[in-house]
Amino acid sequence: MSIDEAKAQLSHYDELGFAKIDLHRAKRQGFPEVIFGQGKTKEQISQIITSLSNHHNVILVTRINEEKASYVLQQHPDLDYYAEANIVCTPLDSINQSHHCISVLCAGTSDLPIAEEAAVTAEVMGIQVNRYYDVGVSGIHRLFEHIHDIRSGKVSIVIAGMEGALASVVGGLVDHPVYAVPTSIGYGANLNGITTLLSMINACAPGTSVLNIDNGFGAGYNAAMIIKMLENQ
Amino acid sequence: MSIDEAKAQLSHYDELGFAKIDLHRAKRQGFPEVIFGQGKTKEQISQIITSLSNHHNVILVTRINEEKASYVLQQHPDLDYYAEANIVCTPLDSINQSHHCISVLCAGTSDLPIAEEAAVTAEVMGIQVNRYYDVGVSGIHRLFEHIHDIRSGKVSIVIAGMEGALASVVGGLVDHPVYAVPTSIGYGANLNGITTLLSMINACAPGTSVLNIDNGFGAGYNAAMIIKMLENQ
Amino acid sequence: MSIDEAKAQLSHYDELGFAKIDLHRAKRQGFPEVIFGQGKTKEQISQIITSLSNHHNVILVTRINEEKASYVLQQHPDLDYYAEANIVCTPLDSINQSHHCISVLCAGTSDLPIAEEAAVTAEVMGIQVNRYYDVGVSGIHRLFEHIHDIRSGKVSIVIAGMEGALASVVGGLVDHPVYAVPTSIGYGANLNGITTLLSMINACAPGTSVLNIDNGFGAGYNAAMIIKMLENQ
Amino acid sequence: MSIDEAKAQLSHYDELGFAKIDLHRAKRQGFPEVIFGQGKTKEQISQIITSLSNHHNVILVTRINEEKASYVLQQHPDLDYYAEANIVCTPLDSINQSHHCISVLCAGTSDLPIAEEAAVTAEVMGIQVNRYYDVGVSGIHRLFEHIHDIRSGKVSIVIAGMEGALASVVGGLVDHPVYAVPTSIGYGANLNGITTLLSMINACAPGTSVLNIDNGFGAGYNAAMIIKMLENQ
Amino acid sequence: MSIDEAKAQLSHYDELGFAKIDLHRAKRQGFPEVIFGQGKTKEQISQIITSLSNHHNVILVTRINEEKASYVLQQHPDLDYYAEANIVCTPLDSINQSHHCISVLCAGTSDLPIAEEAAVTAEVMGIQVNRYYDVGVSGIHRLFEHIHDIRSGKVSIVIAGMEGALASVVGGLVDHPVYAVPTSIGYGANLNGITTLLSMINACAPGTSVLNIDNGFGAGYNAAMIIKMLENQ
Amino acid sequence: MSIDEAKAQLSHYDELGFAKIDLHRAKRQGFPEVIFGQGKTKEQISQIITSLSNHHNVILVTRINEEKASYVLQQHPDLDYYAEANIVCTPLDSINQSHHCISVLCAGTSDLPIAEEAAVTAEVMGIQVNRYYDVGVSGIHRLFEHIHDIRSGKVSIVIAGMEGALASVVGGLVDHPVYAVPTSIGYGANLNGITTLLSMINACAPGTSVLNIDNGFGAGYNAAMIIKMLENQ
Amino acid sequence: MSIDEAKAQLSHYDELGFAKIDLHRAKRQGFPEVIFGQGKTKEQISQIITSLSNHHNVILVTRINEEKASYVLQQHPDLDYYAEANIVCTPLDSINQSHHCISVLCAGTSDLPIAEEAAVTAEVMGIQVNRYYDVGVSGIHRLFEHIHDIRSGKVSIVIAGMEGALASVVGGLVDHPVYAVPTSIGYGANLNGITTLLSMINACAPGTSVLNIDNGFGAGYNAAMIIKMLENQ
Amino acid sequence: MSIDEAKAQLSHYDELGFAKIDLHRAKRQGFPEVIFGQGKTKEQISQIITSLSNHHNVILVTRINEEKASYVLQQHPDLDYYAEANIVCTPLDSINQSHHCISVLCAGTSDLPIAEEAAVTAEVMGIQVNRYYDVGVSGIHRLFEHIHDIRSGKVSIVIAGMEGALASVVGGLVDHPVYAVPTSIGYGANLNGITTLLSMINACAPGTSVLNIDNGFGAGYNAAMIIKMLENQ
Repeated sequence: MSIDEAKAQLSHYDELGFAKIDLHRAKRQGFPEVIFGQGKTKEQISQIITSLSNHHNVILVTRINEEKASYVLQQHPDLDYYAEANIVCTPLDSINQSHHCISVLCAGTSDLPIAEEAAVTAEVMGIQVNRYYDVGVSGIHRLFEHIHDIRSGKVSIVIAGMEGALASVVGGLVDHPVYAVPTSIGYGANLNGITTLLSMINACAPGTSVLNIDNGFGAGYNAAMIIKMLENQ
Repeated sequence: MSIDEAKAQLSHYDELGFAKIDLHRAKRQGFPEVIFGQGKTKEQISQIITSLSNHHNVILVTRINEEKASYVLQQHPDLDYYAEANIVCTPLDSINQSHHCISVLCAGTSDLPIAEEAAVTAEVMGIQVNRYYDVGVSGIHRLFEHIHDIRSGKVSIVIAGMEGALASVVGGLVDHPVYAVPTSIGYGANLNGITTLLSMINACAPGTSVLNIDNGFGAGYNAAMIIKMLENQ
Repeated sequence: MSIDEAKAQLSHYDELGFAKIDLHRAKRQGFPEVIFGQGKTKEQISQIITSLSNHHNVILVTRINEEKASYVLQQHPDLDYYAEANIVCTPLDSINQSHHCISVLCAGTSDLPIAEEAAVTAEVMGIQVNRYYDVGVSGIHRLFEHIHDIRSGKVSIVIAGMEGALASVVGGLVDHPVYAVPTSIGYGANLNGITTLLSMINACAPGTSVLNIDNGFGAGYNAAMIIKMLENQ
Repeated sequence: MSIDEAKAQLSHYDELGFAKIDLHRAKRQGFPEVIFGQGKTKEQISQIITSLSNHHNVILVTRINEEKASYVLQQHPDLDYYAEANIVCTPLDSINQSHHCISVLCAGTSDLPIAEEAAVTAEVMGIQVNRYYDVGVSGIHRLFEHIHDIRSGKVSIVIAGMEGALASVVGGLVDHPVYAVPTSIGYGANLNGITTLLSMINACAPGTSVLNIDNGFGAGYNAAMIIKMLENQ
Repeated sequence: MSIDEAKAQLSHYDELGFAKIDLHRAKRQGFPEVIFGQGKTKEQISQIITSLSNHHNVILVTRINEEKASYVLQQHPDLDYYAEANIVCTPLDSINQSHHCISVLCAGTSDLPIAEEAAVTAEVMGIQVNRYYDVGVSGIHRLFEHIHDIRSGKVSIVIAGMEGALASVVGGLVDHPVYAVPTSIGYGANLNGITTLLSMINACAPGTSVLNIDNGFGAGYNAAMIIKMLENQ
Repeated sequence: MSIDEAKAQLSHYDELGFAKIDLHRAKRQGFPEVIFGQGKTKEQISQIITSLSNHHNVILVTRINEEKASYVLQQHPDLDYYAEANIVCTPLDSINQSHHCISVLCAGTSDLPIAEEAAVTAEVMGIQVNRYYDVGVSGIHRLFEHIHDIRSGKVSIVIAGMEGALASVVGGLVDHPVYAVPTSIGYGANLNGITTLLSMINACAPGTSVLNIDNGFGAGYNAAMIIKMLENQ
Repeated sequence: MSIDEAKAQLSHYDELGFAKIDLHRAKRQGFPEVIFGQGKTKEQISQIITSLSNHHNVILVTRINEEKASYVLQQHPDLDYYAEANIVCTPLDSINQSHHCISVLCAGTSDLPIAEEAAVTAEVMGIQVNRYYDVGVSGIHRLFEHIHDIRSGKVSIVIAGMEGALASVVGGLVDHPVYAVPTSIGYGANLNGITTLLSMINACAPGTSVLNIDNGFGAGYNAAMIIKMLENQ
Repeated sequence: MSIDEAKAQLSHYDELGFAKIDLHRAKRQGFPEVIFGQGKTKEQISQIITSLSNHHNVILVTRINEEKASYVLQQHPDLDYYAEANIVCTPLDSINQSHHCISVLCAGTSDLPIAEEAAVTAEVMGIQVNRYYDVGVSGIHRLFEHIHDIRSGKVSIVIAGMEGALASVVGGLVDHPVYAVPTSIGYGANLNGITTLLSMINACAPGTSVLNIDNGFGAGYNAAMIIKMLENQ
């Protein structure tokens, strides 16, 4: 890091009092600061969007419920709300799609919101996404029917609750990185997803890495970084 | 329980001081008391065998290492040692085999001792066993090649460490009870098998139940009880 | 698995968008896909029933509360709601009963809903069930009065919370498989059933295996598979 | 606490540098300071015995292995070593026995050392002890044969590993306090006794309280205090 | 247990369908079955009271909130509600008091409901109780002022949350049994009382045993059994 | 502790029935008893304030929500409510400020309430506080811009959730004590702050110590004690 | 998956009795089966190498200690042992290097073996690796000096124990995927790496995913898959 | 941080290959880098000492056993070994003592090594230390005799295992910061110090903060920083 770089970087944030908006992130990490909606008021979210909009043309807010989203869209009518994904962002149809694609798989119907968080995150970052939902291992033929297509993608994101076996099975069938996202779906000894997380961390197939419970965003973000590198070759 | 039964039962054990040998168990549970070798001295094991031999003609000692086994076989030359299973018992070739069979599957090479504990337990109880070893889900075609045979068995025992996904996959492919045995094989977040145990308890396929970590004996015992009922129809 | 079987299997599911209904399961596992009501909307449940009804004549929905059940019964007036079991299914009186029977025991009054989930699951699968409720070990004579009848059953399901001692005691008194179901009943160091689960996993009696916390369904399903094999001899 | 009492108490310990021997304890708690041998060198143990012997005529050292005990007995030939209990103490035959008695029960052969620690602790405190060993619930008739005698005791100590069900069963059959001591005997999900501890803490029978894992001493000490109060009426 | 005793015992319960009321318990354990109100409907509680009232003249219902209590008192106007203790029972002023007394101590104001559960339980069992509330160790002089009185009691019950240090301190100052009851009071790393429970299980003072989190009832019950034995000498 | 001191101390509390107000604390610890509002009724809080006001001129109530605060301020109009900190106390502008100052840093916007609890606690104890909010390590230049000022403070308080890395980073950059306060902010494997707590306990930088989850008060109190010693030199 | 593919796949493994060598993996996943040396005997390892050598020209054995490695190299003199990485593999200097490179960073000296496992794994898969060791956050300038070079890599692997803060800091400074590997280095509340694992799972920087404790291999394997995709564009 | 400072800092470490010695730390944190001996070879330790000795005149190595220490002292005869503390450092008698002093207290004899680690760490940093050993709460008068002296110190370090109650008691009696260090002393439910750690984190007395299990060094280091600030006023 040269001295000049350091200097430049130090002056790049917007002080809002309750937050210091990191305006340098797009340069440092290739995508502007993403707003984590949970634990922030709708007013705070709206104010951060205003600050970011002055410098970037893509906005992404995750973990935002219907009520907050409705307020935010009133203030920022140029954004859209993707309810199943709990995401407010720049409209997806205004974003150019990548040539390469990723796959988002989920094991059961209840895992859908996290799968959508992953998929929409990648899409707002310009990545083409194929969805394969309800392909859990208790009826493994549902997965096998699509395995050829999944293999032709460049990254797979596997969203599953309970014992999370889908991550291991997919990890053993593809030659690209698999991001495993445990969900808090389940009951009893599932421990709100901790069991799934530990299980996925122990996945016997190489080529698998793990995100936090319900962190669909993180998986979508990682996948997008890989596809971007591929496109920019 | 009639009064006479209660009375009879009360006088049915052999007092050894350090142990009260349950001589009534064969009548109550269909198989004599099994000796858990771990935590007992070789002299205690040998003395219990002597006590049981007076009343029963099948002996089963589990979790017994080579050194203890060698002492016990000297005292009881009519028994055999199955080293990979850590079992001393009545020679298997002297025991009649059942018509129906069970399957014992294990995911990896390191799970073999527990798989053998399950298999030999069932065999000493007179059950025919088919073994399918190293069929973990990271190379799932190895399992599929045998699925037809596994389906024709009446019980499946699945032995696996790490994330234990094999139990879910098998559980989704058969129409008979599956006993899942987590092993302490793994490292790091495997937590000596606790992760595998929790994962298997959450298996998404119905028809699966779980034993303690490394408890191959329990799975073999349960499976044998089912086959016995089938044979005695 | 022959190639033809694989092929046939691959085309056997019904795509609903939010779910892929596994129409092959009855053939593969002997009973149609069971609908886990929790985490699904009433509309989704109803739609899945419609899909399954086209191919099977027995329907089973578990973990469905009164409000959802009421909606579903309006759409599917041929089904019944068993409120204590939280189950919607084909009316039990229209299903033929097995010759052999199983026992469902529970330790206390609060364990009743899980016990009923187990019992009704078995009944909808055509199994005769005997119920023994509130027979926990703090007044162990209540259990002993029925032990003769319990012994004449072919499978025992033990539902208990707190320390789960009933599973060990029953496991030591019968010669058939015991399925232990920990419940989330208790407080403090019960840890929502985790203590009971761990305790049952360590049950000193052989012949016991364990299901997830509150998973009465799984126990009923396993028991039914065994009885079916006995009847089909 | 009057000022004089406070003053007196403050000057009542013996400074050894590595330890401050509490010479006031016999007055305050009815029995001299007990030496916990584990984590102390044999020289430290011997030196503490010398300090205590100047003021009291009963010595009790727990958790002391054969090698340390051998050294200590050389220095203090008036003491005895009870190997199974890992205890060095004033010879038991020199201590007057109480009129009332307590019962020490253990579930299996491997629990014997902890049971003996409890029993010898009580005996060195002058309490009459009846032992009932290997009476675990998997062969519950072994317990019932002795239940009349156990009921006539004034305190029961239940030592058990694995699921610890014996504590609940005994707790439901007697009208006096039951002290439950979990042991670290078991494997896998026993978690070195944590499962047994949690299970016993949840015992459904009232009248049960719990000690630390393997803390036979604590149970013997508590029981002795109760018997002493009964004798001193 | 003689055969006649066994026989008599077997016929001693009242079948209510949802419960089997243990009418033999008063003979076996010295006090009638206690009703744990949590997890039972108000109608069930009322029905159990009716059943018990036919055979015993003392009734005790714990963990019963205001709304259920109000219904129960309408049906059973001879009972009283002690709101702070969440207990419905036979009026305390109609019960003869013991000569010996016990002490109930609590560390902070928030521990009061559990302390009252312990105290009222003992009182309904006929035991004289002294209360010492808000005597936690952060202001240890508040405890010392009462230590003389506490020492003259025959049992101490220590109710505390957070780190539970009060149990150790009291345990080191008295010569009678101390029952430690962890409460779920605290936040963060208190883990709803698990930290306090584990801490108390490790109390360095001998003569301390532990109950489940918030189990004031169990402590009162144990203490009462000891005092009864003392009175019946 | 001289006898006179002990005597004096013993008579220094105010008995309110539900609480024993520790009037000696200011002398013993340099600051009057602080009222922990959570788990106390508004009436109890108000009554304790009245008791303390008779002896001290500074009042501090933590963890008090808007509704309780409103009641308390009606009764004690001389106090103020600092809503973001959930604190009722003597107005800050009436308290003299220290010469030396401390720094309160927080990683994200959601950590603000805990940061304010720490800051206002220190301020009511007379300490000058500098606030640095939203300086988490994902945009580490925001921290570096202020590092010179932070180094000139005498104590740093670091408030963070999630992985808590900010504590390690700050701990490696300053030469004064760092108090790390984990917050319960996060989701999934954050385990309500337990992960952050464990992480901070393992901070690789020396000079860091840790408080309970969300215990901003404790950090402010510790920091204030250090500054007071510095001022009183 | 076409029928022909399925058929071909089914016949692609080598049956060794104790293992079924997955000869199809190179085709399915782009790299031959890797041998996990831990839990296998030296003879088993050697036999598996022989089987794999018949079909592939790159061999990788991880978690193999000096004694096993010495035996294996005698049998397979064409392989090399990289002691610090505990790896036996095809000599690195015989493998062509990629154009793009990855960075392997570790926080402290004790993390070196895991860092080497990651680095050598990538190198045997043909990837160019830059190493940055002992750059933990307690002396953060050591990291910053290299940040420019790290940014020019395409993947970063961060190996750290204790609180694992390095992963978050690096994750916030680069625009490519970061694989975080917790190590079991630490003591006390580090819980053998579980704390580090949980901490990294909660890393506040997007673009980070996590491997099992000490799983350097997994990180190297993932990184290699990404670089291969980049090179094959 | 000015640009010049940053620049200067960046060039301040010594590259040893296996380590980057942080030569800037003394300037940044007031004391040179301390060597954590555990997990490093004796040769590595010796080499790091050589590197540090070129720039600083005080050396501190913690967690170093007798065998490593003996090698290191041969290479560096100007250093001393304090065996009980497992520390190699600059001889204490060559270091000037502070005017203010701190107190190191430990609860039992087994806590001595950690107490010495804390004490010697502070002493090598030039701080005067008073030791109070074996003052656990089970004989609380041993603590009270010294409370006057402890109060006159400026920091207290409390070292304790088991339930760690000593920290709360001391925290309630002094007006200066208390550093609580849990030790791994104990057994069973002590969980190698985790219970003590959690207990201390919940200490009810304000003014207490907590270090990692067995981290005597951290407590000594923190205490020294405070005393230095006091002396430098």
